Amino acid sequence: DIVALIEPLLSSKHVLSGLTFTITAGPTREAIDPVRYISNHSSGKMGYALAEAAVKAGAKVTLISGPVQLPAPAGVQMIQVESAEQMHQAALTAAAQSAIFIGCAAVADYRMSEIATDKLKKGSESELQLTLVKNPDIIAAVAGMNKNRPFTVGFAAETRNVLDYARQKLLNKKLDMICANDVSKPNSGFNSNQNAITLIWPLGELDLPVQPKQQLAEQLIALISQHYHALEKKP
Amino acid sequence: DIVALIEPLLSSKHVLSGLTFTITAGPTREAIDPVRYISNHSSGKMGYALAEAAVKAGAKVTLISGPVQLPAPAGVQMIQVESAEQMHQAALTAAAQSAIFIGCAAVADYRMSEIATDKLKKGSESELQLTLVKNPDIIAAVAGMNKNRPFTVGFAAETRNVLDYARQKLLNKKLDMICANDVSKPNSGFNSNQNAITLIWPLGELDLPVQPKQQLAEQLIALISQHYHALEKKP
Repeated sequence: DIVALIEPLLSSKHVLSGLTFTITAGPTREAIDPVRYISNHSSGKMGYALAEAAVKAGAKVTLISGPVQLPAPAGVQMIQVESAEQMHQAALTAAAQSAIFIGCAAVADYRMSEIATDKLKKGSESELQLTLVKNPDIIAAVAGMNKNRPFTVGFAAETRNVLDYARQKLLNKKLDMICANDVSKPNSGFNSNQNAITLIWPLGELDLPVQPKQQLAEQLIALISQHYHALEKKP
Repeated sequence: DIVALIEPLLSSKHVLSGLTFTITAGPTREAIDPVRYISNHSSGKMGYALAEAAVKAGAKVTLISGPVQLPAPAGVQMIQVESAEQMHQAALTAAAQSAIFIGCAAVADYRMSEIATDKLKKGSESELQLTLVKNPDIIAAVAGMNKNRPFTVGFAAETRNVLDYARQKLLNKKLDMICANDVSKPNSGFNSNQNAITLIWPLGELDLPVQPKQQLAEQLIALISQHYHALEKKP
């Protein structure tokens, strides 16, 4: 039983005392013009739940959040951002001062090549072409830090081949762990209050079944901290 | 004084009794794939305030709303939609049963030419082209109805040449009135609790200065109803 395994880890409020986390959450918004943007369905609930769980266990938490409709969790240092570029900058700064970095935000892969300063007018053309350019890869940048690199945990929110994509992402981006999240299922993903995750690391995998995001967050924080400490103890 | 002029119109709770309104509010969301979308900064506050003001004055109100973070106003028939195409269909049906139609929603002008059924994967390309096609023009469709056409009021949310664009839109789309809204100003537009409007009709214009959206909504409902009744009384 997973819960029985994990619970002792979190039995003391201060089990993570002194550990510093940086967690990213929510979507990013990439402006098209002053009124329009590209975004995604991330509600921020999973990232906020992780921040709450880490604080509850005694950790010091910086939460970097895109625009969501959630109150700031008590005891968390909040950094509000809009775009992927803003989140990238905030994440690298905070990561250098953290033991553990969890990239839970659904960062936009692309942004507009140019942002219009005034509202684009609908022309007579029946088609419109938007040219997008790649955003910085935040989780890869953190995992690739030369100095003060934190233990780095990513998320892979996918609608098919979820585990395959997640395993590839773990290796390609040199992450320590990744949370594979099938967002095509009704009870596990965006906007839901429940979620299911497969936690993957280079030497193992663990299925965490559908449950409230709060409870899942506590298990993830415990497992991530356990792996972090195991790594720290290595010679 | 504008308020002094309008107040008597709304002094009785039932001044609009028997009148049916359809009001659209909020943004629309145009899916790119199962997780990404294009949208805009409309909070829905102005449209919801208009619906509340109309109900307060005794009208029967259908509120067609895109995704917003607002509770349904009491006494209003709510229709929740996501995309411009869904709003278009709901609006034409409701408009045919309404005396007055107010198009306050910030409808996306374009949608994806094709919606991906699975999450688009970030490729190795540094650029991504999105091809968009025009959405139906809801307010023009309502104003152009051959049968049961309601008195039709539009909104023009612009960042420059606001009055010029609004006057053009009034004429081109054959609207009865239009609310010109400069959303580049900090206190008058998206997400603000205040707003300023210039109400324009074929024979006149009226500036309604910065004030809480609730109060502005009551003035607009009174002025719109007054113009509607004046038109009805014509031989």
